Amino acid sequence: MSNSFGSVFKITTFGESHGRALGVTIDGCPAGITLDMDFIQDELARRKPGQSKITTQRKEPDSFEILSGVFEGKTTGTPLAMVIFNTDQKSKDYSHIADSYRPSHADFTYQEKYGIRDYRGGGRSSARETAARVAAGAVAKLALRQLGIQIHGYVSQAGDIKTSKSHTELDFSLTESNIVRCPDLEVADDMISLIDSVRKDGDTIGGVVSCVIKGTPVGLGEPVFDKLHARLGAAMLGINAVKGFEYGSGFEGAKMRGSQHNDLFDSKDGKVTTRTNLSGGIQGGISNGEDIYFNVAFKPVATIMRDQDSVDVHGEAVTVSGKGRHDPCVVPRAVPIVEAMAALTILDFYLLQRTTKL
Amino acid sequence: MSNSFGSVFKITTFGESHGRALGVTIDGCPAGITLDMDFIQDELARRKPGQSKITTQRKEPDSFEILSGVFEGKTTGTPLAMVIFNTDQKSKDYSHIADSYRPSHADFTYQEKYGIRDYRGGGRSSARETAARVAAGAVAKLALRQLGIQIHGYVSQAGDIKTSKSHTELDFSLTESNIVRCPDLEVADDMISLIDSVRKDGDTIGGVVSCVIKGTPVGLGEPVFDKLHARLGAAMLGINAVKGFEYGSGFEGAKMRGSQHNDLFDSKDGKVTTRTNLSGGIQGGISNGEDIYFNVAFKPVATIMRDQDSVDVHGEAVTVSGKGRHDPCVVPRAVPIVEAMAALTILDFYLLQRTTKL
Amino acid sequence: MSNSFGSVFKITTFGESHGRALGVTIDGCPAGITLDMDFIQDELARRKPGQSKITTQRKEPDSFEILSGVFEGKTTGTPLAMVIFNTDQKSKDYSHIADSYRPSHADFTYQEKYGIRDYRGGGRSSARETAARVAAGAVAKLALRQLGIQIHGYVSQAGDIKTSKSHTELDFSLTESNIVRCPDLEVADDMISLIDSVRKDGDTIGGVVSCVIKGTPVGLGEPVFDKLHARLGAAMLGINAVKGFEYGSGFEGAKMRGSQHNDLFDSKDGKVTTRTNLSGGIQGGISNGEDIYFNVAFKPVATIMRDQDSVDVHGEAVTVSGKGRHDPCVVPRAVPIVEAMAALTILDFYLLQRTTKL
Amino acid sequence: MSNSFGSVFKITTFGESHGRALGVTIDGCPAGITLDMDFIQDELARRKPGQSKITTQRKEPDSFEILSGVFEGKTTGTPLAMVIFNTDQKSKDYSHIADSYRPSHADFTYQEKYGIRDYRGGGRSSARETAARVAAGAVAKLALRQLGIQIHGYVSQAGDIKTSKSHTELDFSLTESNIVRCPDLEVADDMISLIDSVRKDGDTIGGVVSCVIKGTPVGLGEPVFDKLHARLGAAMLGINAVKGFEYGSGFEGAKMRGSQHNDLFDSKDGKVTTRTNLSGGIQGGISNGEDIYFNVAFKPVATIMRDQDSVDVHGEAVTVSGKGRHDPCVVPRAVPIVEAMAALTILDFYLLQRTTKL
Repeated sequence: MSNSFGSVFKITTFGESHGRALGVTIDGCPAGITLDMDFIQDELARRKPGQSKITTQRKEPDSFEILSGVFEGKTTGTPLAMVIFNTDQKSKDYSHIADSYRPSHADFTYQEKYGIRDYRGGGRSSARETAARVAAGAVAKLALRQLGIQIHGYVSQAGDIKTSKSHTELDFSLTESNIVRCPDLEVADDMISLIDSVRKDGDTIGGVVSCVIKGTPVGLGEPVFDKLHARLGAAMLGINAVKGFEYGSGFEGAKMRGSQHNDLFDSKDGKVTTRTNLSGGIQGGISNGEDIYFNVAFKPVATIMRDQDSVDVHGEAVTVSGKGRHDPCVVPRAVPIVEAMAALTILDFYLLQRTTKL
Repeated sequence: MSNSFGSVFKITTFGESHGRALGVTIDGCPAGITLDMDFIQDELARRKPGQSKITTQRKEPDSFEILSGVFEGKTTGTPLAMVIFNTDQKSKDYSHIADSYRPSHADFTYQEKYGIRDYRGGGRSSARETAARVAAGAVAKLALRQLGIQIHGYVSQAGDIKTSKSHTELDFSLTESNIVRCPDLEVADDMISLIDSVRKDGDTIGGVVSCVIKGTPVGLGEPVFDKLHARLGAAMLGINAVKGFEYGSGFEGAKMRGSQHNDLFDSKDGKVTTRTNLSGGIQGGISNGEDIYFNVAFKPVATIMRDQDSVDVHGEAVTVSGKGRHDPCVVPRAVPIVEAMAALTILDFYLLQRTTKL
Repeated sequence: MSNSFGSVFKITTFGESHGRALGVTIDGCPAGITLDMDFIQDELARRKPGQSKITTQRKEPDSFEILSGVFEGKTTGTPLAMVIFNTDQKSKDYSHIADSYRPSHADFTYQEKYGIRDYRGGGRSSARETAARVAAGAVAKLALRQLGIQIHGYVSQAGDIKTSKSHTELDFSLTESNIVRCPDLEVADDMISLIDSVRKDGDTIGGVVSCVIKGTPVGLGEPVFDKLHARLGAAMLGINAVKGFEYGSGFEGAKMRGSQHNDLFDSKDGKVTTRTNLSGGIQGGISNGEDIYFNVAFKPVATIMRDQDSVDVHGEAVTVSGKGRHDPCVVPRAVPIVEAMAALTILDFYLLQRTTKL
Repeated sequence: MSNSFGSVFKITTFGESHGRALGVTIDGCPAGITLDMDFIQDELARRKPGQSKITTQRKEPDSFEILSGVFEGKTTGTPLAMVIFNTDQKSKDYSHIADSYRPSHADFTYQEKYGIRDYRGGGRSSARETAARVAAGAVAKLALRQLGIQIHGYVSQAGDIKTSKSHTELDFSLTESNIVRCPDLEVADDMISLIDSVRKDGDTIGGVVSCVIKGTPVGLGEPVFDKLHARLGAAMLGINAVKGFEYGSGFEGAKMRGSQHNDLFDSKDGKVTTRTNLSGGIQGGISNGEDIYFNVAFKPVATIMRDQDSVDVHGEAVTVSGKGRHDPCVVPRAVPIVEAMAALTILDFYLLQRTTKL
């Protein structure tokens, strides 16, 4: 269950890392989105491995194909299905995974939950599944663009190196100018050096993706349980390797006093605004028209180029060796995934909002 | 929409702060839970205002009544409905809220979203709604107790005062021994002093609730989007005033290397365990049998005893004065809410898990 | 599970026949419905037993109370909860049901499914639950009235007596003029005589409720699985004692040829219409603007005033005697239930329709 | 929206008649179903056009491909995706449909609902979409077979020719022995003659598919709104051209008296049974262990080989000529679709049932 996301714009992803194909269906895709195929392909390219010296060199071409739901370049309101065929299905040697549980991977929990697992490349638990999310997210982004809403993700922290600039001080046109996707260029250089050294160690490192959503109208988000930030949080926590989510003042807000934290209202040209934005653009779970911003913490990925103690499916002690793809820091590649999940969340609330008043 | 939570054990809450009643229905409540009415009442008492000198003195008796779904002390599998009648409905003077937007409250966003709002006491956006969640959560806790699963919430931080002890070093039998619900007793005293001084200032302060779930079997949680921690996160972020959620290594994990972070597997008496638990008891979104633990950050509540600049519904500048209930730190009272939402999440996944294998 | 109905305007009913109360919550109730309390009470009165000589004489006052979701006479967009307290809870003698399975009731299946059942008055399986649907349906009807959509239910058949007039030949202002709710007055008299004679026999009789929906805009209903008639059918089949549903040409349509059955399109004043309406106002699962009409078949209710062979919970043969309320023909009382479920279905699709185009 | 069916075993179909491909995803597919590929292909063959002289001669090879969710011949618990590529995509001449509304087709309602439609071959509203349901239903059937549950569909009526035998008098091993799929062989011959004469007229004819489900355990189905027959009904009414659904005594039951209709309980070898089965195997919405049986009425399909009056998208009068595929009676080909939807419904309730008791 629960390979689906969204309540109106509802996606379902499918596919294993080394199966026949990955893909996604969008049920509830509104009619009238103009599809820019190059844009979708570019988004997939931003996620795929092998983009730069600091990522894994495994190649995933990730060409997508649309199977349904589009006619003469526009969505028709019927389900849009997209497929990415795997070209990398050959029978590799997976004997080291077939019977052993890799530390901090999902091998053990899948085996226990289902009694069976496709161990090739991690199967369904592989981050390769996120390609399907990026494809669906690209469609959502195109819809949001038509609605005047923009989403800007970037790497704000790699290991213990972080930018000290807030999102209002950054120039997002610089995000894609460097391989670590940090618009604070000096910090970007330090991040790249760190990741490169981690790579040489055969190790991995975590980081933080920050994201800002601009142009959201007032009124998106549903009290009580589906507060805008609650579903954004779930969307982010559903991404592989994510360990934390905070929005607005976040964990820092826990230290503050109400007199500091309250965002006083102003009125400008008949529009209600706030002087500060510690609320993160969301009040009572509903967007207030200010910038929505949040942070997503990623742990270091589990695949390292070292031998590790573990157990096999029979409970016997084994050594798991450092085979497989090595990606020293997935955080730059996670930026389009964070953006995709944000786009899916916002578009869903945008459509749902129309049912609020008789 | 979206006053519902859960996929199998599905609750829907209703009610406004100063309306006729609050309540909750549980659709999908399994037959065979033995209801301990005193326990449910005690849980409501843990949440209600006016418990101690550091909380608001407004009285909410919060007596609940079960309307359906129980027969001879046991749940029957039909919807269980619980109601808490409001005794505090008299027409107070709400003119200061009727037309004005209180800073960092949901007045503005509700008005814009719905075109109408019940402004009395904050209406639906009042934290009073969480009483309904605690009532439903108490039922879930009773079910989990029958299943051998325990949930322990506690205050780990108030303002900038925090315990340095990890959850494995704490004695949870001490949590209820002090009014701030911190089992680290020395730190508890400091927290109480801080909150008391904030109270005297007419101000408010945030904090962090930590929570540990013990006894969870392997296999709860659903990849891809409904990872156990993704739904736990959504559950927590749906609580009023929450700004962040992290589990296992959390935001600290972003600084770590894979070689430090990986939890090596061991086998003990035929049971697979991990040597460390930076994963927070969850791998690939599925419980691995270790302790599940997480932190929830609360901002300071917005109602302070001071005058603040704001605007009214016509966009005119106004001063909002510090009336209403003053609760300098809601974090101790949030502990049972966090526990309730955790219980609802875990029970839901427990039941769902049974559909995984043919 | 599944005491809920609707995808946007989502109701959940609760309550047992002889428990504390029955009720319903509406999550997704749009803001801006003006509530006419007298109308809601009148709808409940149309459903309640004891209305005339041909129905059971048991009294159910069915006064409702709104607990939430309304402010100054209008819905606010937050969940609307309604409760009907049972006044009839005294400990009657239910020993004849406690251990025995009444033929064609739900006693056996509930006991097997849940391992426990509230046997008093049939508990949750009692048709008394439909009062909650009528209450919610009355709110939906008020919303539809604001939108210009009307729903007309009536009894078209009782036993083997049926009207030969089609819905276009009937004057619906006559429906409530007689106790059997048949607008064909001559046939109504025959139906009343039949039911009265069945009553004297201590027996029961089935019948058919027909329903017409006028004023529906083009475009309601969702292909593929949620065709307008599929969800209408599910709504009707969910009513106690219903055995069949047909719309448009229905089962007669199975005998026809395409050349007879096709509804040719016309254009009148810029509006596309059809010359005939064997489609029943729905094409491809989507409303086409013509009258929507359908029939709902009710079996005779199972409670008869006679001794019947059965078995008890231990599998021993017993005689179940004809105690309890005797309602010789529930079909007239089912009219407001059919209308309520139709209203809930149409309003839900009306709101959902707004999400169809970007 | 709503191209999905099921609550636990949840399918989503996609694809247009003349698009790139049709397909289906199954989210919530339990691990451990052994997939028999030949069986799935055979089920698709039973649905496809061109099987015999009485169906359309258009060829749809309908070879399917599984993209995910299977490992070493068994389902893994992850989403199973199946695709059927269209080989028939060439640019035919669709100018007669592009601008005109075919009578009793979905051209007009789709155009109005979405503002755009893929008119080629009817696009999404084409019955070709049901191939995806049959593929998913075949997987469900394989699961049910492992659970000892069998589903038998057959044609009981074509036009006004119907079998007089009840389902208990028929030998279902004969169903596939004739091209009209009627196990009453004498009646089958008459049906074939009728359909052949309709075909020669360039006309179409409706009919009824009956279905029996054997081996269902007691306890499937959910009160109140998701009664087993309510969801079965919705499943059937969602099939193209269906106008009615009845189960057990059905519309005939409306004429009966309670004393005739009640199914008296017996006990045999510790198992509770009923002497008669007018309930159709379902009481209070829950299976009682007896045979479940129901009828599904199909109207004649709208495509006939004659000229018909209609209007175009501009509201101008046009003549729509009888082009396109001619299928004089789809009812025999609907048998596997009815069975597929029944299998999907039963399996879903089977899994859901496991969550009923703590």
